[in-house]
Amino acid sequence: MELPEAVHFGQNDLPFVDIGDGSKLKVLQLRIGEGMWIIENIFQAGYEVETHQHTGPVYGYTTSGAWKYREYDYVNRAGSFLYEPAGSKHTLQCIEDDTRVWFQMYGSNINLDAQGNISSVVDGPMTLAFYYAMCEEQGLPRPNVLVG
Amino acid sequence: MELPEAVHFGQNDLPFVDIGDGSKLKVLQLRIGEGMWIIENIFQAGYEVETHQHTGPVYGYTTSGAWKYREYDYVNRAGSFLYEPAGSKHTLQCIEDDTRVWFQMYGSNINLDAQGNISSVVDGPMTLAFYYAMCEEQGLPRPNVLVG
Amino acid sequence: MELPEAVHFGQNDLPFVDIGDGSKLKVLQLRIGEGMWIIENIFQAGYEVETHQHTGPVYGYTTSGAWKYREYDYVNRAGSFLYEPAGSKHTLQCIEDDTRVWFQMYGSNINLDAQGNISSVVDGPMTLAFYYAMCEEQGLPRPNVLVG
Amino acid sequence: MELPEAVHFGQNDLPFVDIGDGSKLKVLQLRIGEGMWIIENIFQAGYEVETHQHTGPVYGYTTSGAWKYREYDYVNRAGSFLYEPAGSKHTLQCIEDDTRVWFQMYGSNINLDAQGNISSVVDGPMTLAFYYAMCEEQGLPRPNVLVG
Repeated sequence: MELPEAVHFGQNDLPFVDIGDGSKLKVLQLRIGEGMWIIENIFQAGYEVETHQHTGPVYGYTTSGAWKYREYDYVNRAGSFLYEPAGSKHTLQCIEDDTRVWFQMYGSNINLDAQGNISSVVDGPMTLAFYYAMCEEQGLPRPNVLVG
Repeated sequence: MELPEAVHFGQNDLPFVDIGDGSKLKVLQLRIGEGMWIIENIFQAGYEVETHQHTGPVYGYTTSGAWKYREYDYVNRAGSFLYEPAGSKHTLQCIEDDTRVWFQMYGSNINLDAQGNISSVVDGPMTLAFYYAMCEEQGLPRPNVLVG
Repeated sequence: MELPEAVHFGQNDLPFVDIGDGSKLKVLQLRIGEGMWIIENIFQAGYEVETHQHTGPVYGYTTSGAWKYREYDYVNRAGSFLYEPAGSKHTLQCIEDDTRVWFQMYGSNINLDAQGNISSVVDGPMTLAFYYAMCEEQGLPRPNVLVG
Repeated sequence: MELPEAVHFGQNDLPFVDIGDGSKLKVLQLRIGEGMWIIENIFQAGYEVETHQHTGPVYGYTTSGAWKYREYDYVNRAGSFLYEPAGSKHTLQCIEDDTRVWFQMYGSNINLDAQGNISSVVDGPMTLAFYYAMCEEQGLPRPNVLVG
């Protein structure tokens, strides 16, 4: 059996798509059976991700800007590492323009409304399908995301 | 640093609790941050688990009886192994009495009603809390589940 | 994107191969990139697996017979569940004939000699290659292991 | 049961220790039972990590400088993402000073000499013990690594 090889994506190998007001998304990898997905975001100040609970662990690597969870005081800046255990629940708020973060995620985001009721669930395959659709809509060729 | 040691549960080290009509549940292990939980069930013929979708992979090890997913033809019997990838969706039906299965699960069960809408979400910590509560209700001492 | 489906192996869907003195091995699943592998063994009394240390967690589900680790007193019997954390180290000894166990394993076995030096490393791909080779040698068709 | 909370490390919350010629190491997180460990390195040009094979997947997030595997042509630079599947084997070479990388690793590094024989095995607990020892040697207080 041949040894599996490492797979590299340079900064510009995959395009970002716009997700509103200049905030952006790129999907790098999806391990379907495992429920693992890796994305990179560029958020602009004021961007907010609705309150959600994770069903698996999430690891956040921030490389520029500043963002926080509304529920906590600490601020993620360039060089910050964040561990979000399965079951953690929070509301992302971007504080500075061009805030850049990689998220390595396991499982789904259970989105919650103001009353704490489930409003929707977002997972890796849905996010990949959205990314492909936005690439097409924005006239970009289908990106070579690592899917397996 | 001391080496971590293996942890053993014999067949009768943890009690089963009744989950209706003689079907039973035991929780063996919960890895909180990882979103991993291991349970053992004894199902009676006719027991049904509502349609659900998994947010992480599930591994099923059957040791007696017979059960199936309504959506598929194959039947799990003693000696069956079942791999359920993240994202798979199905409705468990028990066919024979005293059907015994271990489930090693990652992530949550997203339960779906007949229209495909989310009716509830069940995860490891909720199942453990339920197990503890049922043990107390049934006059059993708090079981020594492996939680970490 | 189509939903992934569960994959079922009945007790006799994959053959056992002889690994010496009537002890047997079957490989059910290999997740290559993840380093996950699931096997089933039938051990005969006196069978011993050399001392080894795991680089990832292992979950053991025993369905008949009796086996133990030389380093510990507890005995795995039908219905036993065993959690072996990454880094745990032990020497498997089979006590009764027809001892049957599923092992769900992450990572590699680092085998150690009597002086504690590394004698070899065994992982999922090597075990699958061995299983295929033994099937061929024993005149069995190539088994349909779940590999991905 | 209380919800688990996210844990944040700012860029300067944990110290780097010197691992030779100005290259540096920081350990951020260790999940013992899972065999998961997260480190951050700053490498100087010419720094080399001996040939090794991984027993689980590794995810590399580069934020400055340039490094490569001797076996491949691509170069990791600021913004590069690298997926190293379990079983992959390679030799790290740093090309530019102040090359900064986070590695999220599962399992162990099996180090190999020029003949392909195993020279040593390095895992998360060993790396954490080394990190603590180097902190002590360099007069730093024991860092608050996330261990669980």
